[in-house]
Amino acid sequence: MNIFKARKKQIETAYKKLINKKNKPVFPDNGIYTRYSYPILTADHIPPHWRYDYNPKTNPFFMERMGIEAVFNAGAIKIDERYILVCRVEGSDRKSFFAIAESKDGIHFEFKGEPILIPDISGETNLYDMRLTLHEDGWIYGIFCAESKDPTAPISDTSSAVAAAGIVRTKDLLDWERLPNLTTPSPQQRNVVLHPELVNGKYMFYTRPQDGFIDTGSGGGICYGFCKSIENPVIETEYLLDPKIYHTIKEVKNGAGAPPIRTEKGWLHIAHGVRATAGGLRYVLYSFLTDLKEPYKVIARPGGHLMAPKEEEYIGDVPNVLFCNGAIADDNNRLLIYYASSDTRLHVAESSIDRMIDYCLNTPEDGLRTYETVNQRLNLIKNNKNLF
Amino acid sequence: MNIFKARKKQIETAYKKLINKKNKPVFPDNGIYTRYSYPILTADHIPPHWRYDYNPKTNPFFMERMGIEAVFNAGAIKIDERYILVCRVEGSDRKSFFAIAESKDGIHFEFKGEPILIPDISGETNLYDMRLTLHEDGWIYGIFCAESKDPTAPISDTSSAVAAAGIVRTKDLLDWERLPNLTTPSPQQRNVVLHPELVNGKYMFYTRPQDGFIDTGSGGGICYGFCKSIENPVIETEYLLDPKIYHTIKEVKNGAGAPPIRTEKGWLHIAHGVRATAGGLRYVLYSFLTDLKEPYKVIARPGGHLMAPKEEEYIGDVPNVLFCNGAIADDNNRLLIYYASSDTRLHVAESSIDRMIDYCLNTPEDGLRTYETVNQRLNLIKNNKNLF
Repeated sequence: MNIFKARKKQIETAYKKLINKKNKPVFPDNGIYTRYSYPILTADHIPPHWRYDYNPKTNPFFMERMGIEAVFNAGAIKIDERYILVCRVEGSDRKSFFAIAESKDGIHFEFKGEPILIPDISGETNLYDMRLTLHEDGWIYGIFCAESKDPTAPISDTSSAVAAAGIVRTKDLLDWERLPNLTTPSPQQRNVVLHPELVNGKYMFYTRPQDGFIDTGSGGGICYGFCKSIENPVIETEYLLDPKIYHTIKEVKNGAGAPPIRTEKGWLHIAHGVRATAGGLRYVLYSFLTDLKEPYKVIARPGGHLMAPKEEEYIGDVPNVLFCNGAIADDNNRLLIYYASSDTRLHVAESSIDRMIDYCLNTPEDGLRTYETVNQRLNLIKNNKNLF
Repeated sequence: MNIFKARKKQIETAYKKLINKKNKPVFPDNGIYTRYSYPILTADHIPPHWRYDYNPKTNPFFMERMGIEAVFNAGAIKIDERYILVCRVEGSDRKSFFAIAESKDGIHFEFKGEPILIPDISGETNLYDMRLTLHEDGWIYGIFCAESKDPTAPISDTSSAVAAAGIVRTKDLLDWERLPNLTTPSPQQRNVVLHPELVNGKYMFYTRPQDGFIDTGSGGGICYGFCKSIENPVIETEYLLDPKIYHTIKEVKNGAGAPPIRTEKGWLHIAHGVRATAGGLRYVLYSFLTDLKEPYKVIARPGGHLMAPKEEEYIGDVPNVLFCNGAIADDNNRLLIYYASSDTRLHVAESSIDRMIDYCLNTPEDGLRTYETVNQRLNLIKNNKNLF
């Protein structure tokens, strides 16, 4: 057997083995959510024919022609009993693109079709982190970050970027109509999310004003604003929803994650918070509830993080990062949280709406100081007397 | 069985299994110290009743109510045949507090009692890294870092902090009397350590002047100073003891670690040194000896680090960090070095006073340049001729 055939067989066998591998929940868990043993999607889950030239004449060694670096930050939606993820896929050239993976159980995914070619309307360099919102207007919206080189940077600065929120919509996940980028008072936006319902007849967006790259500048935190038209999406005013705060898990910056999920008790948010460490930034997930009728009012702020990196999750292309931009409220109260670790691979955590509501309503709010949080914990211990 | 009972049993079984797990030394070692296979304390070692609400009515899912992120940097002391660690425990809300773990053999620890509520005298945000000194005046002192938001930072800067050395003392590890924070010529202090004996009738502190946050500013290195009174602790002048030096393991900053240990040959210090890397700061442990009668004179400076991260130790909430703020000189010459890795978990390394003295006196001093250190190594090799 020649090298081409031998390698092709090796690669295809490994791929089939990987996508047929059964995942399993990890116990004991913290009762709030359950992790799974393996990532649900990685670079190795990308179909070989998206990476290899299958022609023995032009690729006699069956070498990988276009490598994949990572599969991470995925928008999530469930339609027609299909669990759909629109993943951020990064090639070995560092450019991100979107690709659809599908599952019948919400845990075991396989890439389908081909990478999505988002229409090019303003020449952006890199597109990433799509939030999928099944809107009450009947469309599926994808809000993503569209980043370009900062045109005002000095020639010697080849890093500085500017970011805007791009918008696409689709009905079938095949044809994606691109709308104009969102206009906001803040010159830059990352982590923009579309609320699933109209609020007072308007489209509501969660924004994260950002004056500079990486640094959120004077942004203040997760904001919100309203648009009359989605075809001409202009936000006139941004209001602060959830601020960044000194010595919390969202000290340096924060951003909306998965589009909020309607529950009986309020809109459930899964966001991310960022703090600085001696070894770079650290991204964790946190949660909060907003009022059902007035979704711009936070009604529950559980203190601390919901989820932080563990074990393998700590390491990757950008270490010490958990990020979530998609979750699915399934039947029977089941909640699937799709989160990525260290900008490298995608995982799932399983919870329930009931458990997340309990978490939001009964976790003490951040005490902000050691003295207060020790008192909170001593109170917990006191109440446990004679019970443990 | 209902979910509450089932989960409670799972969690308690896992906890009991963990605290009964036998640790074992790792061989071969380098002869200077011996690592152990597993961390001695982690977040999972925190008793479940410090984290879970045990009331089935208010916590029907038996969910973790107040999560723990990490157990690390511990002060250490041996009294009445009990090995005591006052650990830095960090909640999922990022606030650190102190909690006592106890052991009969210095290796296997279990948390006791309840978290320590340090009296609140000046409204600091976060308290951490307590050094325990059994002082010749009869008190056990705890010197810790007390950090608050920088009141001079602009509104958009939610990160900058100012740090001072807090002081508590106790006789029984139950009642902690808080004294005023240490006043020094430098506006900020981290890594302050109290010397175990009076020097010329005064309390001697090791300090680490710090003008800015993270950056040590014009500090210069580990310093020392004297106080007439511990109830009104004012250092008038700080003197340099051990400077930070270009292209050494303490290039960016350094700080005192465990309170120095009296040996026949001098005071044994275990400190930390920090250098910058492309992936953030790197913290390692190093050692030096000071004169018994004049403890402000360094008499031996072994070159390089004593201990640097290995394997699992590399990763965690703040990667690439080893840190030690407690060691116990045991009977029979045994030395226990309690060190934390990557701000996440606590380990022990076992050595002896004899071995550490040998290390300090016979390790070549840092050659400061490749040319010199190659000559040092060639000399070692030459002396080994006909011996290996």
